[in-house]
Amino acid sequence: MSVPSWQQRPEDFANRITQSLKWIVQHMQQSGERSPWSALTPGELASRIPLTAPTTPEPLEDVLADLRDVIAPGLVRWDAPGWFAWFPSNSHPDAILGDLLASVMAQQGMLWTSSPACTELESRMLEWLRRSLGLCDRFAEGGAGGGVIQDTASSGVLACLVAARDRTTSGLASTRGGDACSGLVAYTSEQAHSSVLKAAGICGIGRDNLRLVPTDDQFRMDVRSLSRMMQDDVAAGLRPCFCCATVGTTGCGAIDPVSQIGQVCQKHDVWLHVDAAWAGTAAIASECREPITSGCELADSWSFNPHKWMGASFDCCCLWVADQRPLIDAMSIDPEYLRNSATGTGEVIDYRDWHVQLGRRFRAIKLWLLLRCTGAAAIAEMVEFHVELARSVEAAVNAHDCLVLAAPRSLSLLCIQHIDGDLATQSLLDTVNADGRFAVTHCKLDGLLVMRIAIGALNTDQATVDALIQVMTEASQ
Amino acid sequence: MSVPSWQQRPEDFANRITQSLKWIVQHMQQSGERSPWSALTPGELASRIPLTAPTTPEPLEDVLADLRDVIAPGLVRWDAPGWFAWFPSNSHPDAILGDLLASVMAQQGMLWTSSPACTELESRMLEWLRRSLGLCDRFAEGGAGGGVIQDTASSGVLACLVAARDRTTSGLASTRGGDACSGLVAYTSEQAHSSVLKAAGICGIGRDNLRLVPTDDQFRMDVRSLSRMMQDDVAAGLRPCFCCATVGTTGCGAIDPVSQIGQVCQKHDVWLHVDAAWAGTAAIASECREPITSGCELADSWSFNPHKWMGASFDCCCLWVADQRPLIDAMSIDPEYLRNSATGTGEVIDYRDWHVQLGRRFRAIKLWLLLRCTGAAAIAEMVEFHVELARSVEAAVNAHDCLVLAAPRSLSLLCIQHIDGDLATQSLLDTVNADGRFAVTHCKLDGLLVMRIAIGALNTDQATVDALIQVMTEASQ
Repeated sequence: MSVPSWQQRPEDFANRITQSLKWIVQHMQQSGERSPWSALTPGELASRIPLTAPTTPEPLEDVLADLRDVIAPGLVRWDAPGWFAWFPSNSHPDAILGDLLASVMAQQGMLWTSSPACTELESRMLEWLRRSLGLCDRFAEGGAGGGVIQDTASSGVLACLVAARDRTTSGLASTRGGDACSGLVAYTSEQAHSSVLKAAGICGIGRDNLRLVPTDDQFRMDVRSLSRMMQDDVAAGLRPCFCCATVGTTGCGAIDPVSQIGQVCQKHDVWLHVDAAWAGTAAIASECREPITSGCELADSWSFNPHKWMGASFDCCCLWVADQRPLIDAMSIDPEYLRNSATGTGEVIDYRDWHVQLGRRFRAIKLWLLLRCTGAAAIAEMVEFHVELARSVEAAVNAHDCLVLAAPRSLSLLCIQHIDGDLATQSLLDTVNADGRFAVTHCKLDGLLVMRIAIGALNTDQATVDALIQVMTEASQ
Repeated sequence: MSVPSWQQRPEDFANRITQSLKWIVQHMQQSGERSPWSALTPGELASRIPLTAPTTPEPLEDVLADLRDVIAPGLVRWDAPGWFAWFPSNSHPDAILGDLLASVMAQQGMLWTSSPACTELESRMLEWLRRSLGLCDRFAEGGAGGGVIQDTASSGVLACLVAARDRTTSGLASTRGGDACSGLVAYTSEQAHSSVLKAAGICGIGRDNLRLVPTDDQFRMDVRSLSRMMQDDVAAGLRPCFCCATVGTTGCGAIDPVSQIGQVCQKHDVWLHVDAAWAGTAAIASECREPITSGCELADSWSFNPHKWMGASFDCCCLWVADQRPLIDAMSIDPEYLRNSATGTGEVIDYRDWHVQLGRRFRAIKLWLLLRCTGAAAIAEMVEFHVELARSVEAAVNAHDCLVLAAPRSLSLLCIQHIDGDLATQSLLDTVNADGRFAVTHCKLDGLLVMRIAIGALNTDQATVDALIQVMTEASQ
């Protein structure tokens, strides 16, 4: 029996997946064969794609050929062994398989009723990760708090900032807006991620009212400054509502003193959010855990991105809150067309009330596959191995006459400078990126240029790091 | 050579995909075998999953067995032929394959430099869809406007509302916040999606300052009321900044008169956003297009969700803006660690500046696979077929003594009532849902209960719709 033009038989779908596996395997095998950066110039890829969609279907082999010839040159190989740029964004094979299953199951988990599996597996996966990372019990499943998957840390911090804003204003910021947001102040360090600033602009608090707290000589938030700023703000009649501490800053991986920050926040009834987007994964390795989870018992919310170092495949940000109520109060909507008996009982979680979006993908399944098929121990071994690789780079820098660390090594992240200043550091950056095996990016610390080496790609190895050390040291004379 | 515990050889990954295909094919084949709703009670699924993650890896066959025995009973079969609840959320096999490729390629498209392929293919896919839907040239690629993929329509409307808010306040709402948001007013109809209200609460305008414009006897925004409300607000010294028109409301699929609304908005320099989340797909069928795209030349932004009817697999919302500038002004952040030469030239799109999130998945690839391998014509045929199915339900309702349409059929969406009132309609809803082949949900129109029949699942067919008609008519005596 023929199927309609818009349908596909499951067995035909399976054949098409099989047909694509050859390209997939080849693509994976080639991860280190060219520069991780794309050599294309702006517009080059687009110029090779027609302006109009095809009307009639094209054979899959043609599309796979274009994938190789047209799309692949425009890819950046975030999966290369020499990927040391920004932070890793790993797609572990088990997570890829899990996400394929999510697409096949096509759940839309806005409500418990719209997918009990998506809802309950998500709560449980957050509990698995909470225990694996050693996060405190106030975030546990089944208590006053709990966990949720956000797409990205940016969405997570926005949701928490709005919840905090509403908690301080008894909800008036959400209902009345405008004046009800007046005088609200939020805090984060000078080294915090730009998403905090973006969220402050979006939510009506205003970017000008996000205080950028100075940092100490290791780029950690200076708690005395924070305390003084809050006191001054309160004295001026302003209303501190939110503070974001960073565990592993984007620049150099600095870890803010969360416990001390938490004490200051408690004094002023300020919501403490911990952004451990990158470094959070490392808590799965017991030797790395302590500074990462330290103080989490004082946090109102805590988040990290398994789609970075852990390999859960973009996008997947895990967020825990100590108390569901303020988040749900801020994000809940209850139109007639979404009412149902399960929600009515109050016994189930409806995750649409935990973030900006209404609809939601079954992201928990990729965590489930990753944690069951690869296992927490292997992820911990990976973290330890990457930290060990970073130690070898650190040793090489320390042994070199012209290279210095601009900040202490943080886990597997290094910030390297040439002692001759920015021009020499830029030249080093250019040389490393031009080599063809590596991708590195920069930041500035104390106003000076820094080459960041963020070790964490799934397939990186000692040989690649040794080659990096060689190029780096030879280029820095 | 053995690989480290956290890695997987590409050929082993391919084998594991192959091993999973049997489950996948079986799962797909069983889409109509049980009630689309899950029979589980709250907590039942979670009780079958351990509280702690496994430390060591488990065999894939064990996980696939649990997928069948533990997870599958908690799935809601959004892919069932009898899925008529809410709106469809289709995962077309070609889109599933495309999303698998996205996971494998592991791009993070925050910047052009971080993935030229992700960036340029996305712009081009939005252009393909713009042309396929017949949207106006001001949204075209390469002009002052352009398109972007948001995760969901909720994120899209939030981004546009913030851009509108900032346009009206010359950016002060983002920088100063608080008072700078005072007096801002936004508009949408009483029938609009709850995401507009949620966004108004999030962005500092305040839910109370979202005017819910009354609707006419067909549940379309009443333009004279809108005009009067805006005039009154201006006269009262308030600042109208944003209006959301809906093309295909969630309740009954009503299509607001966008052209007339646009004229009112222009008079007061108000940003007009069009939310065509569900109905937008139907514009790909020329016979359905006119009311859907009508007036789009007056809109500042226009969005629809290919992850609904079109089958692009959750999540994928397409958003076009007539002018990039206000959106970028509102969403742009420019930290040192993201600076790069391509961005510096101003010649490339950095999509991180087009939404709340920073990181982004390579979602364009699933649209590319879907449009190339299935083709726009087949999607149009599907839409026309579903509309035809809805006509058969409409005819049955019209021929029935006890059933009436509470609103005119909109494309493939029907709102059905029993003439004896809510109790009888509820009984009808319960009977249809209890049958085991169908899933339907409800809404209220003019305060009365309505059974919604949203036809649009990829695999629905005449036989299933005939069975629905039979159950429905027999139950309504």
